[in-house]
Amino acid sequence: MKGGITLQEQINRQILFVKRPTGKPDESCFKLITSEIPRPTNGHVLLRTRFLSVDPYMRGRMNDRRSYVAPFQLNEVLTGGIVGEVVESKSNNFVKGNFVVGNLGWQDYSIANEKEVRKIEPEIAPVSTALGVLGMPGLTAYFGLLDIGQPKQGETVVVSGAAGAVGTIVGQIAKIHGCRVVGIAGSDKKTNYLIDELGFDAAINYRTAPNLRKALKEACPAGVDIYFDNVGGDISDSVISLINKFARIPLCGQISLYNDEQVSMGPRLQPRLLTFSASMQGFIVHNYENRFDEGICQLANWLKEKKLKYAENVVEGLENAPTAFIGLFAGDNLGKQIVKVS
Amino acid sequence: MKGGITLQEQINRQILFVKRPTGKPDESCFKLITSEIPRPTNGHVLLRTRFLSVDPYMRGRMNDRRSYVAPFQLNEVLTGGIVGEVVESKSNNFVKGNFVVGNLGWQDYSIANEKEVRKIEPEIAPVSTALGVLGMPGLTAYFGLLDIGQPKQGETVVVSGAAGAVGTIVGQIAKIHGCRVVGIAGSDKKTNYLIDELGFDAAINYRTAPNLRKALKEACPAGVDIYFDNVGGDISDSVISLINKFARIPLCGQISLYNDEQVSMGPRLQPRLLTFSASMQGFIVHNYENRFDEGICQLANWLKEKKLKYAENVVEGLENAPTAFIGLFAGDNLGKQIVKVS
Repeated sequence: MKGGITLQEQINRQILFVKRPTGKPDESCFKLITSEIPRPTNGHVLLRTRFLSVDPYMRGRMNDRRSYVAPFQLNEVLTGGIVGEVVESKSNNFVKGNFVVGNLGWQDYSIANEKEVRKIEPEIAPVSTALGVLGMPGLTAYFGLLDIGQPKQGETVVVSGAAGAVGTIVGQIAKIHGCRVVGIAGSDKKTNYLIDELGFDAAINYRTAPNLRKALKEACPAGVDIYFDNVGGDISDSVISLINKFARIPLCGQISLYNDEQVSMGPRLQPRLLTFSASMQGFIVHNYENRFDEGICQLANWLKEKKLKYAENVVEGLENAPTAFIGLFAGDNLGKQIVKVS
Repeated sequence: MKGGITLQEQINRQILFVKRPTGKPDESCFKLITSEIPRPTNGHVLLRTRFLSVDPYMRGRMNDRRSYVAPFQLNEVLTGGIVGEVVESKSNNFVKGNFVVGNLGWQDYSIANEKEVRKIEPEIAPVSTALGVLGMPGLTAYFGLLDIGQPKQGETVVVSGAAGAVGTIVGQIAKIHGCRVVGIAGSDKKTNYLIDELGFDAAINYRTAPNLRKALKEACPAGVDIYFDNVGGDISDSVISLINKFARIPLCGQISLYNDEQVSMGPRLQPRLLTFSASMQGFIVHNYENRFDEGICQLANWLKEKKLKYAENVVEGLENAPTAFIGLFAGDNLGKQIVKVS
């Protein structure tokens, strides 16, 4: 049935969140069910999911505790970044065939209010980039580095989780601003990619470096002016031991600690921040919501000018979304981890 | 000999720094010697020391390691904030009888370059205030709270080391800005002073509170928006556990850790700063050197308007300066600790 919804597709597969993980999440936290395809009411659209995003921050929502976003509820469909194609519209803002991005369910079909999705322009870049370089990860890199990090020509920027969705963009924006850029990542494949493909000045494999602090010292002969922190823990302790006066530390993620059941202990940072008049600032991209257009516009321009490259790691099939998510914590992904649903 | 230097005074007592302390400093780190009174050359003045300042930051200079100011050298005269009276001038900027403030030696008489001292106006307030509310501690409170803390009407400000030279001013400036102010100090005498004399909304004696976190929670029913940190360590951990979204933490001092020989360990703060989009910023007052006039002017106005009170704890005699300094780490002082030299 050309142009319509075929019989075979008239099952809506959904992934439920059924168990809060203790430590590292595993497959038993997820359950695939099927349901009927819902129908849109006025002001709504029916979307067919094309891509879904798996992101480290979702681990935080799996705990039943206060954080910057509400916890996931048990036995409900998981939600996250989704790129969908409009298959039926009851909204004046969208027509069939439009691509949109929004925070929606892990399922084949979703109903979305016209106000909770944003139209994507497929002529700028593949629609999947709305989950990466032209989406939350790109904006996170953009605002975290530029607004908090305030990079200046010639400064040294270190980024951890450097080969991830955010880290790859942070390093490239820092290069655009004339900085020396040093990435920390978890495999030689990644560090080679950072240097050879993205133009990082140096990259360190923290898993194989015999002495991370020494390796960092060699890679940062003039010290560290900005540390964009995606990981936390021991890696961050090493970087922070090398900060310069007036260093800035945007805190974007702490993936090394997300699966910890207890509060992690470490060397106290305040004496160091005090001695070096340094600052550390936690943020989430939603703090910059009123400037998203500015960010997307600038990132899209850099893409067009070929100043920015992006990498995607694509897993096929909705049913493999849990595995893709779990893989984030093993450091499997180079670039943005997405799931191609259809 | 009226107007001149009498015979009896023609000895210049000096306090040398003779031993780097391990842990807490004691009297054996200091030595009193005598020398001849120096004579000023062109562009210089001879000062008779009236007051000298003992400050917690000096402990850092006693270690032989890199910090924001160079370490004290062994067997040299200790230096710090000094209020002196010009007794002989070879400078066009000063005449005999002027009072000045500067960073000079712990001794009865000093030679100062005309560029390294600032004239004090004794009609505004007693000259000793140039070491306290109208000096470095006042400016530290002013810039740390206003520039980094950015207090807004109705917010809750917690200050540790609240009864000290900086803390007393921080709390009062926060009250001027319409904040709820909670002080943490080490004796009932101090907490009573903060509430009864300085108008703090609440004050907690951390030595006797059975559960500091619980006491803080009661004193801060709407959470903590600004934590002005003078002490570090466990006290700070308790306060930081109660921060609100977008909290600001100016790091002014870490007196609880200054005598530690090893790096102190504590719960990692990054996850909390991240969750609450909070910031932590180390600073020293010298970062604001080009705005000192603004700060002194505003502090003097508040003094005149009786919006600001100050407390001084005065020890008599140059020979008692080491004891006064050591006392800082026992929490002996209420307000600014100074030594009256003559």
